[in-house]
Amino acid sequence: MDVKLIGITGGSGSGKSTVVRRIEEVSSDCLLIEQDNYYKSAPQVSNDNITAFNFDHPDAFDMDLMLANLYDLKNGRSTLMPQYDFVTHSRKKESVLLEPKKLIIVDGLMVLYDERIRNLLDLKIYVETPADIRFIRRLKRDILERGRTMDSVIKQYTEVVRPGHYNFIEPTKEYADIIIPEGGYNENAMQVLFTFVQSITAS
Amino acid sequence: MDVKLIGITGGSGSGKSTVVRRIEEVSSDCLLIEQDNYYKSAPQVSNDNITAFNFDHPDAFDMDLMLANLYDLKNGRSTLMPQYDFVTHSRKKESVLLEPKKLIIVDGLMVLYDERIRNLLDLKIYVETPADIRFIRRLKRDILERGRTMDSVIKQYTEVVRPGHYNFIEPTKEYADIIIPEGGYNENAMQVLFTFVQSITAS
Repeated sequence: MDVKLIGITGGSGSGKSTVVRRIEEVSSDCLLIEQDNYYKSAPQVSNDNITAFNFDHPDAFDMDLMLANLYDLKNGRSTLMPQYDFVTHSRKKESVLLEPKKLIIVDGLMVLYDERIRNLLDLKIYVETPADIRFIRRLKRDILERGRTMDSVIKQYTEVVRPGHYNFIEPTKEYADIIIPEGGYNENAMQVLFTFVQSITAS
Repeated sequence: MDVKLIGITGGSGSGKSTVVRRIEEVSSDCLLIEQDNYYKSAPQVSNDNITAFNFDHPDAFDMDLMLANLYDLKNGRSTLMPQYDFVTHSRKKESVLLEPKKLIIVDGLMVLYDERIRNLLDLKIYVETPADIRFIRRLKRDILERGRTMDSVIKQYTEVVRPGHYNFIEPTKEYADIIIPEGGYNENAMQVLFTFVQSITAS
């Protein structure tokens, strides 16, 4: 089986997860992998102490394991993917057995950061959205879905998310094959992506 | 017949014409329209006096005629497209009769500039390439293909091409559905575009 890997990256709140969710809706026959699963354990972190671990630094991710998993899948082999518990900020005991599919989509903040991972990807997509819009989306999500306060979101954004974006995420736009403004909210671009994705899964 | 219009823009030397040429190679059933055909006559211009007319300003184009032609084609009607003589810098006496096709590709420096034209486009593509690379490509082309001197190319670039780019072309990136770094030299992006184009012409 010919396995194609598509990597989707972009800043926090850029709309990259919406791209992935919409691809999933039109193509049931693809495997989705979130880079968040590869966060290293940081059990010292709590909502009151959210900057005790820098989730916006490449070192926060177990890139070696992610590479190994993607390499297995790209070569048609099943692989064990870790899972992450965002409540305790640590890797769960149970891994998930992933079977290769024709199309694998990997999304996350630093999918294009590691050269070895980049070299495995058949298509590299960067979702570009203005910084203020990204912050507003993150603010709403963290308050509504993660029980955070506005002050805590602003502190984390200013101290780690924003510097991490400009130091480690935005520079990887350089490696993108395609840049999609606004991500999953960009209907015309989504139609192009859907066509491509379906050409892979139908082949 | 459902007619789809794709607009492709980007700075001088960005690689947008290469995108168009490569699409033409894989899809014979599309109609290509170059915005250069809509330049207004400027017979006062010669190679010694190249900045006597600003070819890098939106006013240099007959946007009304371009809009009328695209509107006809989008609505399934044939239309008369002007032709431009780059030796005399003036519109030729003969127009060309264009018949609508399922897919029409329009490329040029200011394809996304006019709101009325933008509203007709089904997909808007911006080709983004670093300014120095674009200048080098333009320098080579103008010397090899247009009999220009290096000094003349630099003078025109500095006085009109570069300001025109930042004033009128780069701002239209804002309207793009998809941004393609390096244009037709970007193999992975071209594969995505080919799939989309073929889905239109095969429908």
